This record gives sequence, C-alpha cells and structure tokens, in this order.
Amino acid sequence: MVEIHLEAVRAARTRIAPYVRRTPVAPMPHLTVEVPAQLRLKLENLQVSGSFKARGVFNNLLLAEPGVLARGVICASGGNHGLALAYAAHRLGVPATVFLPEAATADRAARVESWGAHCIRFGASYDDAHREALVYAREHDLIYVEAFESEPTLVGQATLGMELLEDLPEVDAVFIAIGGGGLIAGMAAAIKQIKPEVRIIGIEPVGAPSMKSAVEAGVTVELPTVRTIADTLSARRVGDMTLALTQRYVDDIVLVTDGAMIDGMRWLWRHINQMVEPSAAAAIAAIQMGLIDLSAYRCPVALICGGNAAAEGIWTYYEGLARAKGTLAEGV
Amino acid sequence: MVEIHLEAVRAARTRIAPYVRRTPVAPMPHLTVEVPAQLRLKLENLQVSGSFKARGVFNNLLLAEPGVLARGVICASGGNHGLALAYAAHRLGVPATVFLPEAATADRAARVESWGAHCIRFGASYDDAHREALVYAREHDLIYVEAFESEPTLVGQATLGMELLEDLPEVDAVFIAIGGGGLIAGMAAAIKQIKPEVRIIGIEPVGAPSMKSAVEAGVTVELPTVRTIADTLSARRVGDMTLALTQRYVDDIVLVTDGAMIDGMRWLWRHINQMVEPSAAAAIAAIQMGLIDLSAYRCPVALICGGNAAAEGIWTYYEGLARAKGTLAEGV
Repeated sequence: MVEIHLEAVRAARTRIAPYVRRTPVAPMPHLTVEVPAQLRLKLENLQVSGSFKARGVFNNLLLAEPGVLARGVICASGGNHGLALAYAAHRLGVPATVFLPEAATADRAARVESWGAHCIRFGASYDDAHREALVYAREHDLIYVEAFESEPTLVGQATLGMELLEDLPEVDAVFIAIGGGGLIAGMAAAIKQIKPEVRIIGIEPVGAPSMKSAVEAGVTVELPTVRTIADTLSARRVGDMTLALTQRYVDDIVLVTDGAMIDGMRWLWRHINQMVEPSAAAAIAAIQMGLIDLSAYRCPVALICGGNAAAEGIWTYYEGLARAKGTLAEGV
Repeated sequence: MVEIHLEAVRAARTRIAPYVRRTPVAPMPHLTVEVPAQLRLKLENLQVSGSFKARGVFNNLLLAEPGVLARGVICASGGNHGLALAYAAHRLGVPATVFLPEAATADRAARVESWGAHCIRFGASYDDAHREALVYAREHDLIYVEAFESEPTLVGQATLGMELLEDLPEVDAVFIAIGGGGLIAGMAAAIKQIKPEVRIIGIEPVGAPSMKSAVEAGVTVELPTVRTIADTLSARRVGDMTLALTQRYVDDIVLVTDGAMIDGMRWLWRHINQMVEPSAAAAIAAIQMGLIDLSAYRCPVALICGGNAAAEGIWTYYEGLARAKGTLAEGV
C-alpha cells in the first residue's frame, strides 16, 4: 500500500530546512464581503522559486549521492517544477536540464533559464516532454526528478502539511489545488495521519478534472483534452500514487472555472497585495462559486500554492513610463 | 521641539491593533548575487490597503469623537494615503472623500472608489489637491487627515518602527523610502529612542529629492519640478515636522534612479514573488546602485512600504487567455 510515513516527512523537513522557507500565514484581518474573514491563507507563493515545488525537488536532490548528483539533474515540467529544479540545482551547484512542452510561455522558460538551467522544448504536452526527458536522462546518466509520482517528491510536499499544522494547530479544513496531485496527496497524508478530523478539499479546473475523473473511475484516466489558463493544473493524467493517497485522505474535490480563478486572483491582490498564478487562486474561486461553505469551519485554510504569474507586462509598463519621463537611466 | 513620544506610539499600537496587520518579515533564505543574503525584508506591502499608510489613517480616525467621525473624513493623496483613508472609512462605516491630482492613474482612482469613497480630481499636483481639499473639509465640516504633517499620522507610522524592533531585536540598519517624510520620520523617531545605534538611511528618487534638499538647506524647500515614476515619492515639499525629525534621527539620504527602482521591483518578484510599487523597491535600488554597503551591517532591513503596483494589465492578460480558450465563464 502506498503510504507517506511521518518519520520520512520529519527527516525531509530537517534535510530541506536550510534551503526552503517556512512561509508565513497571512496576518489578519482580512476585510471581506465575498470571502468570510475567518479564512486563513498559507502564503506558499513566498517559497523559494515561487511555489511549493521547491520542497519536493530539494528533497530529491539532497537524497542523491553527491557524486551522482554532480553529473546533473533533469525533469519535465510545464513551469513550476522546472523552475524549482533550476533554482535548486543552481543553489547546490549542479547542472540542470528542463524539458518544457512547446506550449510553455516564454516567461516561464526565461525564468527557468535565468537560474542557469538548460531548457529543451519538446512535444505538445507535459506528457510528451516527460517521456522524452526520461529517455534523455538515461542517455546522459542524469537524475530524473518526478513532478509528482515518486516518494521523495511526495514526502517533500508533505512537509508543507506538517508545517501548516504547526503554524495553526487549530486548523480544521484545508483547500488545495490539484494538478498532478502531488501537493494534495503529500499534504493530506501528513495532515490526516496527525489530525484525522481536518477536512481536505481539492480543487481542479472545470476544464482539467484529471483527479476527479480518476476518483470516479477508480483508476487514473487520460483526459482527451485539457482546457484551462491554469497551466500548472493542466495535467492530463494524475499518478497511481497520488490517486491512491487522494482516495484515502481527501474528502472532496470541486471544480472551478477560469473566470472564477481570475476573480480569485483579483481578490488576493485587492486584499493582501499578493500577485499569484491562477492555480493559487483556485481555493478562493471555489469559495466565491459557493462550492465550499466556510461557515462549517472555525479555522479553514486556503493553500496559496504558487506566485509565478505572467507579470512581465508590468515591467514593460513601468519602463515605458520612465522612458516617457526621461528618468530610466542614471543621468537624470 | 517636535517629538514623537514612545508612550503615544504604544497607545497607538493598542488603538489600531484590531484594524491593521502585524506584517511578516520575509522568511530566509534569499538566494542572491546582487543583493547580499543578510538583508531582511519587512513586508509592509501586506498591510491592509496595501501600504503603511493604514497605520496613520486608523490612528487619526480612532482618535476622533465618534459623533464628529460619523460626519465623514477627507484627505488629498496621490494614491496610497487616499486608498488607506477609503479603506479605513469603509471599515469603520463612515463616509470618505479623497481629492486626487488630475494626473493620478485611473487604476489608483478605481481602487479608492472600490472602497466606496467619493473621489474628486483637482489640480496638477498633490499640493493643489491638498489646498482645495482643506477648503472643502472646512465647508463640509469633515475631519481632514494629513498625509504626513501631523502628530497622529506620524505616531501611527511610528508603530511600524516599534513593531520592527520587536520582530528583529538584532536589527542594526533600516532603509526607508521618503515621499513627504512621514514614514521615515515616525519610524526613525521610534527606533532611535529605543535603540539609538540603529542606522537609518532614507532613499529618494533622483528626480524628487525633497527631503535631501530640505536637509541641505536647513528648511523645507519646494522643488520646481519632480520627475519620477514613483508617484508615492513625488512630494514637491516635505513638512516642517518631518524635516525636524529627519534632521534629528536619520543618518543619511541617498538618491536612486527610476531604472534602478524597476530593477529592484524585478528582484523582489524574482526572489520572493512580491509585486510592489516602485517606492517599495527604493531600498533594493540603493543597494544595487552601490549607495548602501550591506557588509557594514549584521541585520539590515529594507522596508517594503507598499504593494500597490499598476497590475491591471495582468487581469487583462489572463482574461484574454481564458477568452481565447473559451473557458472564462461557467459553461465550460
């Protein structure tokens, strides 16, 4: 039976502690109408590399033999996992290769490359890139770091669940977005083994219900298409391990629209000036769509899982403003 | 002699505590090349209304007689002070009027109005709007809330200095942007009276050195022009009180370019996914320009004073993306 052992999670926390951040829970008060004030926000968008993915990646890299690690690491990723791998490899001084699907935005690729990683674009989807990257890893004798379907990765993400229980021992519900399922599987496993009465609700886009479909079918299924702006939630298939852990530990899965995620992004900006990617607003979207009833909980938490929004336009705006004023350069 | 008394600051902290946030210090590590890793960041951009201004505003409003407060409050502001007033008035259930200079961006006006405040555009600059708003306040018998040149406002901003010393008792330098001078005057007064050896460095844009000019002249001076994208730092004249406190408590003032502030914004986004306005990146800009030598300190802190960047373009981007995918609305 697939299981995440708490001893392994504790060991991982110690292992990765020098490299990742203990992210803050957003300070109260929130003044809200559409989202009741008792909602707490765990700001994992402040994590190194901008998402929770750094936890699993560092756990993988730090478990490797130094001599093997030095040859380099590789993964396939639509974005955040690749960014985390690039960051972690830079931090540890080893070479990194990241396979991106052709459709990945230029902004994401640029961020991966900015940490010195070698980016290779391949295939129409994550799944294509994933297959090719596995071949490349064997050919070049590199450590392949799975985005969600591996124990070291799941144990790394589980550290976030344990950390949250320490942040807020009174937590009674946690809302977590689902892409490949690694985050919710790891977090739910840690939380439920420590405090079984905490309710865990997963959120997927209407256009990419890979986990909900798998739970209903009792087996992972490949969605014929995925349609959502939340690129970090657009896995066409979840994993056997993430499905098994979700079946055991997750209480419910709800589906949100892209429009509601954008509204959730606006809400996070308006109320606490956090600019996040669509997936990180999925829990807010579910609340605003009426799919989660906050009045049932005393200390519910929305996991703000990543901040890597497409913000490049903002620099362009300010640079244009400064150019018009003639104040961009030093010779003002 | 103008002074900020610590007893008054302590009383203000208690007064405003139910309404403002104790903002987090960004968790380490920061992986950096251009900005050494010992720099700490006080994330006041997470404050309610998106900037430190909420502290002074709430202190003013909560000091007022309830019967007088109920008639309404008013201010002039290029942005954040007005936003804080609108927010605080909404929170306390009283009407608010905000005078904005004609040049204020539509984004800023929209945010002020979103909290239910009445916006009036008047004049070419903050100073024009300020004069007219004072007349309007007398005519309509409203409480005028000064942006920086008043004791309740300065005492409110001083709470941030006291809070920072509690966050990080080992702090030995603080870097603070200067607009009208209220933030640095209040913070420096609180910090230096408690721990005189902390070094306080102010930062102004090259194109708006109102405090540096005043300190050099020994008296407030009106700059003939101001030229910077940092609209929250573009006061043409500081106040007599903020000048006096700066003369007594601030160790140095350095000047940064708009380009360096934009680079600082990028750094904050890259390293910790915080999207901030240009003024909030002024300290990072000063470090990157070599104007502040971090190696001289063990626990230096950059005050990230506000997060109200012009982010409207990001929603437009994501909405366009969702429209193209046909996933914006519920009927996906």
